[in-house]
Amino acid sequence: MRKAIKIGIVGYGNLGRGVERALRLHEDMELIGIFTRRDPAEIEPVFPETSVYHMDEIVQFRARIDVLILCGSSRDDLPTQTPQMAAWFNTVDSFDTHAKIPEYFEAVDRAAKAAGKISMVSVGWDPGLFSLERVYSESILPNGSTYTFWGRGLSQGHSAAVRRVEGVQDAVQYTVPNEAAMASVRAGENPELTTRMMHRRECFVVLKEGADAKSVEQAIVTMPDYFADYDTTVEFVSQEVLDRDHAGMPHGGFVIRSGTTSTGTRATVEFGLKLGSNAEFTAAVLVAYARAANRMHAQGVVGAQTVLDVAPGLLSPHSAAELLRWV
Amino acid sequence: MRKAIKIGIVGYGNLGRGVERALRLHEDMELIGIFTRRDPAEIEPVFPETSVYHMDEIVQFRARIDVLILCGSSRDDLPTQTPQMAAWFNTVDSFDTHAKIPEYFEAVDRAAKAAGKISMVSVGWDPGLFSLERVYSESILPNGSTYTFWGRGLSQGHSAAVRRVEGVQDAVQYTVPNEAAMASVRAGENPELTTRMMHRRECFVVLKEGADAKSVEQAIVTMPDYFADYDTTVEFVSQEVLDRDHAGMPHGGFVIRSGTTSTGTRATVEFGLKLGSNAEFTAAVLVAYARAANRMHAQGVVGAQTVLDVAPGLLSPHSAAELLRWV
Repeated sequence: MRKAIKIGIVGYGNLGRGVERALRLHEDMELIGIFTRRDPAEIEPVFPETSVYHMDEIVQFRARIDVLILCGSSRDDLPTQTPQMAAWFNTVDSFDTHAKIPEYFEAVDRAAKAAGKISMVSVGWDPGLFSLERVYSESILPNGSTYTFWGRGLSQGHSAAVRRVEGVQDAVQYTVPNEAAMASVRAGENPELTTRMMHRRECFVVLKEGADAKSVEQAIVTMPDYFADYDTTVEFVSQEVLDRDHAGMPHGGFVIRSGTTSTGTRATVEFGLKLGSNAEFTAAVLVAYARAANRMHAQGVVGAQTVLDVAPGLLSPHSAAELLRWV
Repeated sequence: MRKAIKIGIVGYGNLGRGVERALRLHEDMELIGIFTRRDPAEIEPVFPETSVYHMDEIVQFRARIDVLILCGSSRDDLPTQTPQMAAWFNTVDSFDTHAKIPEYFEAVDRAAKAAGKISMVSVGWDPGLFSLERVYSESILPNGSTYTFWGRGLSQGHSAAVRRVEGVQDAVQYTVPNEAAMASVRAGENPELTTRMMHRRECFVVLKEGADAKSVEQAIVTMPDYFADYDTTVEFVSQEVLDRDHAGMPHGGFVIRSGTTSTGTRATVEFGLKLGSNAEFTAAVLVAYARAANRMHAQGVVGAQTVLDVAPGLLSPHSAAELLRWV
């Protein structure tokens, strides 16, 4: 057993709770504590023995934490928090605003390099494992097309949109890959597909008392941007059924590259995830990359890094010699 | 455009031909020539302009080749050839005798380090991409089980075994994943499965004139080791049909890890390949890793390396800055 890697969690929503749970599954990891901007006394950790501190105390933990896992929001927290934390700690985060990754990377890289720290940015499954899959498969099959399907998964933005419709008491919305589009891609037909053609939307809706089902359904399926251009289904259920059957946050998806290795000879590479909990799986990925961050920093690597910069063996608790049995 | 990476191919069977084709798909690669122990005049390359040299000349190409791709047999060629070549060249190979990888790695590592060269060993899809998948998914989901299904794919060893049966004129054998076993794994049932329970075998057989179909079928399905313990089907076809429909070398398979992120919350990670040509796809993987070998050597890395040691971004023709758009 090597010395345990000491981890701090910053931010304590679903993702932070997922990290707290995931760390228990790794014998070489030790949780030092959760850091929050709320009153620590108000936080109820998953495991009662977990320590909770206020963010104002975090700098005192500089020498006691090997890697800080940042579990805040990509919109509100990480753009300012990650560069700040990178001045004191090695960090891992799941910044997922795809379009802003280059500028975010740049800001974090500057801070981390100045401090001699390593910062793993945009770790998770998309961005993250799906990014890996796209780069592996496109590098190996330069001649081909890559398709990403998301779901079946709960979309928080679309669920909220349905809940805003008049007459709706509660609702969830699932994004579902279009089976016909997936079949065409898997068959190597290389179809031209937009994101809208690749997905359909399933809504489970609880009506307010007295609301008219027909007009609620009409308002949902014709909603511009969110539903109008999709094949959308609406199913009305009781609050009881919604609470019982739709309380989880499942997600997943597929990255499929379909190409040719020579004229007429086809190759298809497919990667798929089916996740009972989106947040818990993202947390599981963050924890594995925290191990890699700790090792790479020990090797002298500093600055911002993405999953594309990390040799896969560094994620494993096993040594390089042991891993030869995995090859 | 960066300077082209200069490649040599050693050995010219199906794999060598696959590499010759694959190199055409990468603008940053240049084929210097094929090296063979046969008479170069007897070799007919895929592209008539490809140069063919005798192996005896290869040392003269030390300064002209960046990476040598070794396409010989894991049993007969690579164990002696790779350490020899690693004394002169950076190399990439597809050594695939799983049990012997640690000792092979050791021998190649010694030779490559002494010469200041890099040697990527056991590159391909299994070992190779499947190894990656196992390490990624087990590092992320320590709590779970990993299953590897091979096929639907042509098995050369099993095809030869069928052809040795009395009364058989010609035959091919496909290894096929057992659909029920795959469904159970995908459903998260974590079944206990042996390789035999996970696969079935399909034989397409041309009878010799006058041979008795019933007894040939009986001899095949009861053959110990090869077929007796499997669900085996035998279909008799004409030589014409065999030549027309079964001339390719398709293969593929699936690596599935099914685990939990917390008690009762399931996550399934699945990676699958469907390959029209086993050899061409293996070649495509070798070529992408040749690019990584060239880059890592330029960064000062020497010795034997496996796919687990290679950061995914190094496989891509795109620069690290460009790749931020892929994350």
